[in-house]
Amino acid sequence: MTIDLPSQMHWSRWGDPAKSHPVSETMRSLIEAFLGPVEERPAVDPGAVRLPEVGLSHDQLTALRELVGDDHVHTSDDWRVARTRGKSTPDLLKIRGGDGSDAPDAVVRPLDHDEVAAVVQWCADNEVALVPFGGGTSVVGGLAARRDGYAGVIALDLRRLTRLLEVDRVSGTATLEAGLLGPEAEALLAEHGLTIGHFPQSFLYASLGGFAATRSSGQSSAGYGRFDAMVMGMRVATPLGELKLGTSPANAAGPDLRELVLGSEGAFGVITELTLRVRPVPEEKVYEGWRFDSFAAGADAMRALAQGRAMPTVLRLSDETETSVNLASPDAVGGESAGGCLMIVGHEGTPEQVARAREATTSVLAAAGGTALGEEAGRSWAAGRFDGPYLRDALLDVGVLVETFETVTFWSGLQHLYESVKGAVEANLTQQGTPPLVLCHVSHVYETGASLYFTVAAKELPDGLGQWLPAKAAATGAMVAAGGSITHHHSVGQDHKPWLVGEVGPVGIEMLRAVKERVDPQGVLNPGILIP
Amino acid sequence: MTIDLPSQMHWSRWGDPAKSHPVSETMRSLIEAFLGPVEERPAVDPGAVRLPEVGLSHDQLTALRELVGDDHVHTSDDWRVARTRGKSTPDLLKIRGGDGSDAPDAVVRPLDHDEVAAVVQWCADNEVALVPFGGGTSVVGGLAARRDGYAGVIALDLRRLTRLLEVDRVSGTATLEAGLLGPEAEALLAEHGLTIGHFPQSFLYASLGGFAATRSSGQSSAGYGRFDAMVMGMRVATPLGELKLGTSPANAAGPDLRELVLGSEGAFGVITELTLRVRPVPEEKVYEGWRFDSFAAGADAMRALAQGRAMPTVLRLSDETETSVNLASPDAVGGESAGGCLMIVGHEGTPEQVARAREATTSVLAAAGGTALGEEAGRSWAAGRFDGPYLRDALLDVGVLVETFETVTFWSGLQHLYESVKGAVEANLTQQGTPPLVLCHVSHVYETGASLYFTVAAKELPDGLGQWLPAKAAATGAMVAAGGSITHHHSVGQDHKPWLVGEVGPVGIEMLRAVKERVDPQGVLNPGILIP
Repeated sequence: MTIDLPSQMHWSRWGDPAKSHPVSETMRSLIEAFLGPVEERPAVDPGAVRLPEVGLSHDQLTALRELVGDDHVHTSDDWRVARTRGKSTPDLLKIRGGDGSDAPDAVVRPLDHDEVAAVVQWCADNEVALVPFGGGTSVVGGLAARRDGYAGVIALDLRRLTRLLEVDRVSGTATLEAGLLGPEAEALLAEHGLTIGHFPQSFLYASLGGFAATRSSGQSSAGYGRFDAMVMGMRVATPLGELKLGTSPANAAGPDLRELVLGSEGAFGVITELTLRVRPVPEEKVYEGWRFDSFAAGADAMRALAQGRAMPTVLRLSDETETSVNLASPDAVGGESAGGCLMIVGHEGTPEQVARAREATTSVLAAAGGTALGEEAGRSWAAGRFDGPYLRDALLDVGVLVETFETVTFWSGLQHLYESVKGAVEANLTQQGTPPLVLCHVSHVYETGASLYFTVAAKELPDGLGQWLPAKAAATGAMVAAGGSITHHHSVGQDHKPWLVGEVGPVGIEMLRAVKERVDPQGVLNPGILIP
Repeated sequence: MTIDLPSQMHWSRWGDPAKSHPVSETMRSLIEAFLGPVEERPAVDPGAVRLPEVGLSHDQLTALRELVGDDHVHTSDDWRVARTRGKSTPDLLKIRGGDGSDAPDAVVRPLDHDEVAAVVQWCADNEVALVPFGGGTSVVGGLAARRDGYAGVIALDLRRLTRLLEVDRVSGTATLEAGLLGPEAEALLAEHGLTIGHFPQSFLYASLGGFAATRSSGQSSAGYGRFDAMVMGMRVATPLGELKLGTSPANAAGPDLRELVLGSEGAFGVITELTLRVRPVPEEKVYEGWRFDSFAAGADAMRALAQGRAMPTVLRLSDETETSVNLASPDAVGGESAGGCLMIVGHEGTPEQVARAREATTSVLAAAGGTALGEEAGRSWAAGRFDGPYLRDALLDVGVLVETFETVTFWSGLQHLYESVKGAVEANLTQQGTPPLVLCHVSHVYETGASLYFTVAAKELPDGLGQWLPAKAAATGAMVAAGGSITHHHSVGQDHKPWLVGEVGPVGIEMLRAVKERVDPQGVLNPGILIP
């Protein structure tokens, strides 16, 4: 793909304002057919966002400026609003309504690991809460720290940590600073002919540190693996000192502590550098569409690929509803659909690798009852692969609440998990008088299981947040009840925290608490996130 | 392979006494040529092993019998000697010399998770140390708990936890109890046409729980992965209560706590059940030999396989010295060698999978300068793949000290790590007047790096333990200095503990301590193991 370096994220919308657009007429008709008439519900003006007073004293701000330089501590409204929460639909509903109550007192922008470490230490010494802020793309409330009991809260903006520190061509690794956004990291590595291969929908605006801290998984995970699988080493600033891990790809020197930092969402420390496994930029990329008669048949075909170890690079399957509205290609939503269930199968590598992989997957998919749809469906998906969030903004503008969430379980429980979660969210919103449209796709495939990514759209009630939260609770409760995970690749944040005990049990929670209390005894690191 | 169910391990030797044999004449000549004349150094008689008095009171033993049944608490010398330490060379030297000072006061044999949990709780309440004992194959001092400050120490023998609890054919997973030895687990799964695919050299005598607790890696790891990669779920008994993990193959619900238990060597809890990824028993197995001119050339070829993602199931490369003495085939040591460096390449799967993989690896290996040696070298390796430890016993019987250790790092540092460790152990033993024979092979290959498995042989001095410990320290110190890991697949135990801080740093150590103190506040779980 051609990589455009990202602009600054909009304060109340996704991404680049130049790319936002109102819903098309086709989309509006489609929405009205499903959900009834829509109405304009614009966001407030940025000037109308209600921000708390800056709570940090002049002396405190001066101390911070001494650590990172005068130009890198910001307290203006613009800076504070742009670092307020993330990009979940609840986050957007709040900020669109003018609620800036979670704004940091200051935005602090260190240059490198040492400056991060100094700020972390200062925060611990001064009982100031610290929210690591990379791309700001959290969709689980991971950037809205608890404020009570603290002298203040700062957004530790990591966007100045943007160096490629080392390329090890022999090992196939690269060490990069954590504040690099996806496209920036790919551009730096492309100069060496290398790629990370991590392309989640948030790719254009999310940071490497965020990928690690949230255990992200991208659209090419079938071929490149989850982000956690790419992390060979890391450097982390904690109030207790520096944590540096990564002697080797894998070892037996006790528990793998990398896996304790991955997914810790800043609660144990701030990730400043990552050593990632990298691969040559693929010479060739082919994405194609396949049609299956049903979601279950498509999932069986995916399982055959994974268990036969004939995996493509990209593998994704829309359910009947998602296929019918063409959500796999946001730019074509409402257009013609081939019916059944659309699978996207992508291959990347050398021409020989692509040919070999394509031959292997084609024979498995055909044997599993799939019909090849050719490359047009694949191209359409690839063209729109990062555009979903713009569509959400456009829908919010016309009073349609849209949100996504995801789960994962083993193959034998997948259909039950699918029906349970879909049923729970449908029942909840229907009971509220706003019957939703629920779409789903399998987004990531493992040998023993797969993930489900749901998109829910409903007419927004006057209190959209009060409408959504119980629906989300119903969905997450259904995941736990069906034995699935509460999140496949978006992490815990504030939003999933009440259910974490259902995932890891009370002893698991105590393990997390013990680590937290040891490395961050003052509890200044992203307080209220992850750990119940 | 045909799986013989294992006999009880010998108290002072490896494995089945029926399979032990003295060194052959060829071997003796070879050894004498390298190390000088040998002399008989037999072990003491079992009756001469000096055991401490049973420290637990009658009431305490009665209480334990109430938890697991009268027949399942043993205090006889035979039981205690057979649960004393593991099978490292230092362990063997001690027990061969009659030192039974690490013997448990009692061997306690629970039936299932609930009985394990009850014993764990009882130990915590009574400040009795507890050593989880599976197959007893530790080679890192993982079974010699600290006794001081405790009312006594028990071996918690898990060999009655031997059920296959569930097979999930759709997901490709199976839930098994942790006390199953490798061959027992494989036999139970073979009835369902399934295999775990984990075959370390200790396979015949090691337990599933031990594989998990030590982050084991087997000879087929190129194809099946490390044991930790197979663990989908687990049930663990801790003093704080039950820990049950495993909603899904992978997720983003915080840190992966499975990875905190994997490698924890009983220090955080006793693993009682494991849900493992399983695969169909391969229809076909082909092992073949390849010859490379040098260790570096062979390693480059391995890297080409791993980075080209054309991995076989088995992949192993002996260095020049190991090739020259034929150590890859213990039954043929001293026989004819093809010279250069021997690589073993194995393929397992359906005939189509084997053919496809073989074609892919053949083209890479040939392009990398390898010469195919055919299947005889592969068959010879496969026939002797679990026999190495018998050879060690036979050599100890004639006063030749033999030990193995392993490390791992990234590809770019592999040659330096190899030379550093080899040089350090050679220098140390030479300085002691016993110049050693140092052999090495690459045992496990990753996309970004590889492991090195060393075998060291030297003429044993009167104080063999005093001779070996500084040599081992020199080797481990060299691993840390060269940036490698202190262990690739044998875990930390007592033996590597002093160097763990070099691997994970002081903050990493504090994280481990915090978890330990929270889940095991009385510190009764395998005290002195893993955590400095």
